[in-house]
Amino acid sequence: MLRLKTLSSAVRVRSGAGFAQTGLRGYASLCETYFPNEPKAPVVKTSFPGPATQDALLSLDSVFDTRAANFVADYEKSVGNYIQDVDGNIYLDVYAQISSIALGYNNPKLVEASKSPEMISSLVNRPALGNFPSSTYEKILKDGIIAAAPPGFKDVWTGMTGSDANETAFKAAFLWRRTIERDGQPFTEADEQSVMNNQGPGSASLSIMSFDHAFHGRLFGSLSATRSKPIHKLDIPAFDWPKAPFPMLKYPLDKHAKENKAEEERCLKAVDEILAKNPIPVAAIIVEPIQSEGGDNHASPEFFQGLRKITKKHNVLMIVDEVQTGVAATGKFWAHEHWNLPFPPDMVTFSKKFQAAGYYFSDPSIKPNLPYRQFNTWCGDPSKAIIAKTIWQECDKHHLSNRVAEVGSYLYGKLQKLAEKYPKEINNLRGKDCGTYIAWDASSGKAKDALVSGMKAFGVNIGACGVQTVRLRPMLVFEEKHADILVGALDSYLSQAK
Amino acid sequence: MLRLKTLSSAVRVRSGAGFAQTGLRGYASLCETYFPNEPKAPVVKTSFPGPATQDALLSLDSVFDTRAANFVADYEKSVGNYIQDVDGNIYLDVYAQISSIALGYNNPKLVEASKSPEMISSLVNRPALGNFPSSTYEKILKDGIIAAAPPGFKDVWTGMTGSDANETAFKAAFLWRRTIERDGQPFTEADEQSVMNNQGPGSASLSIMSFDHAFHGRLFGSLSATRSKPIHKLDIPAFDWPKAPFPMLKYPLDKHAKENKAEEERCLKAVDEILAKNPIPVAAIIVEPIQSEGGDNHASPEFFQGLRKITKKHNVLMIVDEVQTGVAATGKFWAHEHWNLPFPPDMVTFSKKFQAAGYYFSDPSIKPNLPYRQFNTWCGDPSKAIIAKTIWQECDKHHLSNRVAEVGSYLYGKLQKLAEKYPKEINNLRGKDCGTYIAWDASSGKAKDALVSGMKAFGVNIGACGVQTVRLRPMLVFEEKHADILVGALDSYLSQAK
Repeated sequence: MLRLKTLSSAVRVRSGAGFAQTGLRGYASLCETYFPNEPKAPVVKTSFPGPATQDALLSLDSVFDTRAANFVADYEKSVGNYIQDVDGNIYLDVYAQISSIALGYNNPKLVEASKSPEMISSLVNRPALGNFPSSTYEKILKDGIIAAAPPGFKDVWTGMTGSDANETAFKAAFLWRRTIERDGQPFTEADEQSVMNNQGPGSASLSIMSFDHAFHGRLFGSLSATRSKPIHKLDIPAFDWPKAPFPMLKYPLDKHAKENKAEEERCLKAVDEILAKNPIPVAAIIVEPIQSEGGDNHASPEFFQGLRKITKKHNVLMIVDEVQTGVAATGKFWAHEHWNLPFPPDMVTFSKKFQAAGYYFSDPSIKPNLPYRQFNTWCGDPSKAIIAKTIWQECDKHHLSNRVAEVGSYLYGKLQKLAEKYPKEINNLRGKDCGTYIAWDASSGKAKDALVSGMKAFGVNIGACGVQTVRLRPMLVFEEKHADILVGALDSYLSQAK
Repeated sequence: MLRLKTLSSAVRVRSGAGFAQTGLRGYASLCETYFPNEPKAPVVKTSFPGPATQDALLSLDSVFDTRAANFVADYEKSVGNYIQDVDGNIYLDVYAQISSIALGYNNPKLVEASKSPEMISSLVNRPALGNFPSSTYEKILKDGIIAAAPPGFKDVWTGMTGSDANETAFKAAFLWRRTIERDGQPFTEADEQSVMNNQGPGSASLSIMSFDHAFHGRLFGSLSATRSKPIHKLDIPAFDWPKAPFPMLKYPLDKHAKENKAEEERCLKAVDEILAKNPIPVAAIIVEPIQSEGGDNHASPEFFQGLRKITKKHNVLMIVDEVQTGVAATGKFWAHEHWNLPFPPDMVTFSKKFQAAGYYFSDPSIKPNLPYRQFNTWCGDPSKAIIAKTIWQECDKHHLSNRVAEVGSYLYGKLQKLAEKYPKEINNLRGKDCGTYIAWDASSGKAKDALVSGMKAFGVNIGACGVQTVRLRPMLVFEEKHADILVGALDSYLSQAK
């Protein structure tokens, strides 16, 4: 790695001037309450990557894989929407640990929860929850993960990560399907013998249908449903599970209404055919409300309503993967609340910003018919459930979904203007009315990579996805003043990059 | 569930009298230092399950699956080797959350670590370690997980659970194997297109070989290598991966030396044949030093030496699954240190008592050849790594492996005498010179289940595995005085159960 010359003095990036610093509908700044010491603007002290980051990565590389690292962060010094690196650069962070920080760095309410006796106990006495649940877990769940459940859901199975959440949901779907097919008959000797050899009839010949460009995780089951990029999957064995096309909508939506409708109908028809005819019967489909890793691909509520109808028609479960879309970022606590389904999906998976992971299920019959079928040593982690509880309570108390919706509208409007100014560099702007879950396509994959790297010089840590998409994933405490800084920095970058 | 009559007064279970209360080789009681208020003996106040547990389970069941629950625990009141339930019963815990508690309940050193600023930061600012590692992670790893690495290992990939650890190790094995086979050639268009359909040549047709009775986890890849019980696997799709027989040794070992040697040779021959001829080539084998969930099945160091030779002969990686055997419980920090291999295994996986999870790898070529091949959002969890660091430091400072070895010898000797007294009920006693990692077979599966339940009345929480095996998994702070209580309670139970 080359050591780049350190800039001789700090560059302070100014926020775009003249925009309101307070909320549009009279919300006081929650961010200022949480973070009285939040920086007013990014601070850029070095070129990127800075010398201290380069040294730290070289050293860390002796024990950990650092090849995907952007910079080494000083989390103790990071505050609210700002992340600080070991060179003292302070970035406005609109990527937020791949969309995994909800309430800002060093949020005082999370600090308080982390110091609580229930947290200490959960860390030092971690239980095997399935066998020896704690006296406190019920309340932790009820006040948090269960209180936050999407409409129509009141049951949960807890896990550890998004991959784990999706895979346990897949297992639940297979067990549900085979329980129906077994129709009350006990396991046969042939079942019990064949399954130990990973063969049928004991091992099920069933599949999970996912969509082209989907990302559902990187373990063996979840990776078999992941279809985002070859590099995620190459050389790893996979199940022969089917995929359907996901609508590739054209923007602006209102100018392509007819084509987009036809595109969604084409995809629904493909799903219908797979569910009817796939050689390995489909037990469940899994879908993201917004395909995130795969390029921030959106579809209309009508598409998802159509999907729900098709799954019901074929008696196939519908799993909604809200690992990235969940927890208020789209302006609803759960993104699928945008769809106005007549009845809930069968399962909704979560992780990332919630820190706790797992799946909600809407029908009690999805609970396996016998104990120890869905099971493992820990069955979740109370320490993460305590964090999730605090995040939910703050979201609920401060109407964070609504705040994000408003900030998102504000930000989207400004980005629309920027897209008019830089029509070659900001294409297919999307995420209108989806909170701050906003994205656009750069002019090429190379231009996207250059933007992600180049925005560091303007004090912004930003993320990408798909082939050439820039994705915004600010935290829930991102406010209008931060939007101004982001848009100002983008303007500066694009004017220079032109 | 029936509510059983509450006993009218507390039953105090006496420890076996007349045994030494201090360590055999002059170690002061570490347990008394950690836990000055540890109970002197179990306290049994109610029949099992107690009324408060029954109420709590009924209530918890509205949000969580409680069908596998033993009792509801009050972790705040649990101390050292003793777990308290919500009825006020205090059990000597020799199961320890399915072998997942290292240093005793409410260990003061873990409490201290949990209150540290680095822990608070790790909980509230959880990083995406692959992209934005923290400035503190290198030291946390070096002082903990890396310092604790088995001889010959200095690299690690961190994960979240035992299943995750094993699956990421499998992925590493597949990537390693295909990288060799590709011999420096880039991915082809056919690779990149086929892999998105989960087909070859992009998806590898490779397998992991495991052993009959093995347990390696419950996600789709790890479950395909798990061969313990049908209930773990039924109705879940699996990869067509091979399994070899694991030696079923006869006890006492010295009376069956010849047969046992032949049995191990038979199994090694089967492994050799699978690696030579399996239709789906084997990239790695995975083996537990002591098959735990599958019945505490042991094999000799010569068997594992033979395995290592065979894997080298076929250029197949050897993954040692130390998820349950690791962290000092066998009298070595890693159980495979008992084998005296001429060179280390290729990977060693860990989780459970270490709280942090992942795999060590001994050859740098096991690191994938490109970034983002082994990757996910979190790439581990610094909060768990801090716990692991503290556990390692305490183990190292207080020679806990040696202490466990001594206590194990003491306990084994007492159990041998008990086996002479109850020859029908204690069969195939095993785990000599393996610390407290001791097990025996009950007279039947039913007798084993009765013992696990019945020992609660004598104030002991004990575990089982396999078909009819009782397994001991006390914590590392289990001392001679606890061994006396355990053996006394077993004696009382067995004399009553006769």
